[in-house]
Amino acid sequence: MAQQEIPYKIYLEENEMPKAWYNVRADMKNKPAPLLNPATGRPMTAEELSGVFCRELVAQELNDTDREIPIPQEIRDFYRMYRPSPLVRAYCLEKKLDTPAKIYYKFEGNNTSGSHKLNSAIAQAYYAKKQGLRGVTTETGAGQWGTALSMACAYFELDCRVYMVKVSYEQKPFRREVMRTYGASVTPSPSMDTAVGRAINERFPGTTGSLGCAISEAVEAATTREGYRYVLGSVLNQVLLHQSVIGLETKAALDKYGIVPDVIIGCAGGGSNLGGLISPFMGEKLRGERDYRIVAVEPASCPSLTRGRFAYDFCDTGKVCPLAKMYTLGSGFIPAPNHAGGLRYHGMSSILSQLYHDGYMEAVSVPQTQVFEAAEYFARCEGILPAPESSHAIRAAIDEALKCRETGKEETIVFGLTGTGYFDMVAYEKFHDGKMEDYIPTDEELEKSFAGLPQIG
Amino acid sequence: MAQQEIPYKIYLEENEMPKAWYNVRADMKNKPAPLLNPATGRPMTAEELSGVFCRELVAQELNDTDREIPIPQEIRDFYRMYRPSPLVRAYCLEKKLDTPAKIYYKFEGNNTSGSHKLNSAIAQAYYAKKQGLRGVTTETGAGQWGTALSMACAYFELDCRVYMVKVSYEQKPFRREVMRTYGASVTPSPSMDTAVGRAINERFPGTTGSLGCAISEAVEAATTREGYRYVLGSVLNQVLLHQSVIGLETKAALDKYGIVPDVIIGCAGGGSNLGGLISPFMGEKLRGERDYRIVAVEPASCPSLTRGRFAYDFCDTGKVCPLAKMYTLGSGFIPAPNHAGGLRYHGMSSILSQLYHDGYMEAVSVPQTQVFEAAEYFARCEGILPAPESSHAIRAAIDEALKCRETGKEETIVFGLTGTGYFDMVAYEKFHDGKMEDYIPTDEELEKSFAGLPQIG
Repeated sequence: MAQQEIPYKIYLEENEMPKAWYNVRADMKNKPAPLLNPATGRPMTAEELSGVFCRELVAQELNDTDREIPIPQEIRDFYRMYRPSPLVRAYCLEKKLDTPAKIYYKFEGNNTSGSHKLNSAIAQAYYAKKQGLRGVTTETGAGQWGTALSMACAYFELDCRVYMVKVSYEQKPFRREVMRTYGASVTPSPSMDTAVGRAINERFPGTTGSLGCAISEAVEAATTREGYRYVLGSVLNQVLLHQSVIGLETKAALDKYGIVPDVIIGCAGGGSNLGGLISPFMGEKLRGERDYRIVAVEPASCPSLTRGRFAYDFCDTGKVCPLAKMYTLGSGFIPAPNHAGGLRYHGMSSILSQLYHDGYMEAVSVPQTQVFEAAEYFARCEGILPAPESSHAIRAAIDEALKCRETGKEETIVFGLTGTGYFDMVAYEKFHDGKMEDYIPTDEELEKSFAGLPQIG
Repeated sequence: MAQQEIPYKIYLEENEMPKAWYNVRADMKNKPAPLLNPATGRPMTAEELSGVFCRELVAQELNDTDREIPIPQEIRDFYRMYRPSPLVRAYCLEKKLDTPAKIYYKFEGNNTSGSHKLNSAIAQAYYAKKQGLRGVTTETGAGQWGTALSMACAYFELDCRVYMVKVSYEQKPFRREVMRTYGASVTPSPSMDTAVGRAINERFPGTTGSLGCAISEAVEAATTREGYRYVLGSVLNQVLLHQSVIGLETKAALDKYGIVPDVIIGCAGGGSNLGGLISPFMGEKLRGERDYRIVAVEPASCPSLTRGRFAYDFCDTGKVCPLAKMYTLGSGFIPAPNHAGGLRYHGMSSILSQLYHDGYMEAVSVPQTQVFEAAEYFARCEGILPAPESSHAIRAAIDEALKCRETGKEETIVFGLTGTGYFDMVAYEKFHDGKMEDYIPTDEELEKSFAGLPQIG
């Protein structure tokens, strides 16, 4: 099909939207390693997990055989309020870069939560409601996940309790306020509400918290309260499953116009967006039907894939969660305070870790000043203010497109634009004022952090 | 067509997007009164206006005969980056309200400027570029217009100088930062950069500024600098012309499904959104082809249509602009400081003023606590965080739908959802904390303000 026929934005019709999530584990020869019970060192059973997670979500977490899992009608109805998201042809960016590359991005920011996180939040809230629960607990760092979950819980009239990393709670009062608009209660973490929070506060007086610590508190709050379960916005298999809707829509939109990407790029923190975006493409690759380059982009300040260890590790600081086998910087690792935005989790989805380990995926890391340069460049021609997280993918996509300018190759690049940066203007301000610094952990720092890895697996 | 076939979001194809703006003045028997030169009391000529505005925009401002004005290809290309905007069927809102009414909203918030303002900003930037100008100046209050213009100028590589009402500049540092991301310079107004700014600062030491005052400064900055012109985001005929793209898309989307609205509702500050949304419907009404109820919703704290005078008035505080005949509260009127969001202009588009005067339109005013109640209610079921401005229309739409619940009438309600509230969380916080107050000016206050009206026309 001739290039000029491709519109700026490819929208699917509502009847072309996916009716089932795609479970990439079904096509993996080497399945992701199971979660382990830290007390016994044995794989977590469904029963053990059911104390923390909703029953149907546990089933999804453990299901590595069914390729398709139907999306319940109630979730599909909600998806229709903000999906399908557009697959955008970045005509203006291409022109400004003077590249022969064709660049597409799947834009997930056109909903109030401002990111792709809503795709899994609504699913998790649905299953909690279906199980007759009163509410859910969770943690949030930059605030995208907490916002998404608040919206989802408001829709299903579930109570929503969010533990927000204290430094973000204080620096991002507006994020907190959006969650309150959706009726959620938001507690700065570490708090004095939980045993683990009190212990951390006692051990590290004045601490401004971390994601790992907020997870511990949220899990405790769920397991000690009647009618509550814990939910998580990334890392887990179930989350990547729900996020496959991104990739399925992307592929359907490309297929409509007979477009085959050469390279697919996504930012990677815990892996929710990347895992979702690439899933159907990875499926073809795993089944040997087609080859793609697949690139994970992570911050140089929190480089779990590019510099981490592939090992079992704790998912949280308080060590109340199961152990996961993943690329990790050690559960005690906290990125430097000057790190802007999300993508600050010490580990990485077990699914993506396994795929990376098995050579199905590349990974690069980029320092944040280069990320913000790309963000501003993109904003000025494509008219979208990107989230810092998403801008990692923009950076890598621009770099690929510039390589094409050198080589003359007409590559087709697809990247995930996960969200908007409306609540990240403090970071943008630092960048404009020349006050943003890059931080790259030294080998010594990482070695020290690796020393805390548990001796398992 | 059966109701169940209507999707959640009606998107037009790119080839169904309008190729010409619709100029409602062509269909008005009573044309809006011309702008007057305050010195001579005579209608402003094209030549006089060309010192302030770009030539082609002056032509559009004065053109009250051509029904269609082609949209230049460059603007249509830009429109395609963020348009068509969706016309959303508010299924969830209808269900929650338990109303037989069918509610649709045209959502203009899915672009980084966060509002419909971009529709005119890109047009005005285009004509400035085409004229070979170096840059443009403008004012902004809540910040939506300044953001939109910054984006448009970045796209066409024009210099952009924004005078931002000082109180907003200080309370909304993030808005300022978005404009900087797009390369604009942002100056708090009144500043010491202009003669009018210095005079106002001297006369009212410590003043936090007003829109009327920022307009005066921006006009001075444009007319005293080589290669610059002034641009304005509302009130003017040209702005309503560009914003007709909202109504044209809305009508095309409704026509696709054979839907005929009973009532069309829009919020009204200077009239840019309302005028654009209703234009093709108003055209049918003016030509006697069809009847609709058309409702303007304004804040009770700044009630220009419902309580203002229909008279010639100054458009700005410094009285450097031409006089416009409009519904006005007097150019010295400033809404109470507790007023949240935009819609704080003392006057109203001359086109809308004339139509209202001639009985083609209704107007209601609503106090802001009721507006925020509606905003939160809407956010929790429709998943969009609305701007306070837009929420005026939500309030009125909900009230209409509740009337339908009483009467059992299956009315079709269409309203304009002009933008998102990401930068309005301070106001939301006040509302959540029960600290938001309503302010309704007394008759005495208004009489005092009317006393400042010029004795013309």
